[in-house]
Amino acid sequence: MVKITVLYPNKPGSRFDVEYYLNTHMPMSGKLLGAAIKAVSVEIGRSGATPDDQPPFAAICGFTCETVQAFTDAFLPIAGQLQGDIRNYTDIEPIIQISDIRIG
Amino acid sequence: MVKITVLYPNKPGSRFDVEYYLNTHMPMSGKLLGAAIKAVSVEIGRSGATPDDQPPFAAICGFTCETVQAFTDAFLPIAGQLQGDIRNYTDIEPIIQISDIRIG
Repeated sequence: MVKITVLYPNKPGSRFDVEYYLNTHMPMSGKLLGAAIKAVSVEIGRSGATPDDQPPFAAICGFTCETVQAFTDAFLPIAGQLQGDIRNYTDIEPIIQISDIRIG
Repeated sequence: MVKITVLYPNKPGSRFDVEYYLNTHMPMSGKLLGAAIKAVSVEIGRSGATPDDQPPFAAICGFTCETVQAFTDAFLPIAGQLQGDIRNYTDIEPIIQISDIRIG
């Protein structure tokens, strides 16, 4: 299994609308990507290593898929629609990571 | 529930021994941290957004706990031992993020 992780680096002054992201963008993602997605996770940044540190990331989202190909096949046809919605909740350019799931 | 995420930024020339990390460090982490950890995940970086991009992170590890306090109470007494093992598998300084789990 692979995980597609979308990370939003937390920069001073950047905007991230948590409620829009959770209540509109993520449900839209799930509907558009469909059955290729086996699991979804979203974490919202709270702090760094100590409570006074800003979180390095405003949010981290993970999509679990059988293969990279399965994700790509699901994502490419709807990429424009999904990416076009990003400006509605953030001005942060996300970092994309594709990983092999080894534990969990 | 909260997630403590440990991210290893992938820098050119950096060292990351995946087998030591998976077979020695992570089992040690689980044993030392004990029952405070409700779930563990490890992803090993494969690529960025396209297959030719280097993965932004060599590895991403997540510890799920009931509360930040539960993690802190488990981690502080064994922090030295766990952090002292890092040099055995990498020269990357990890990024620590504490998040609220909102989906997943």
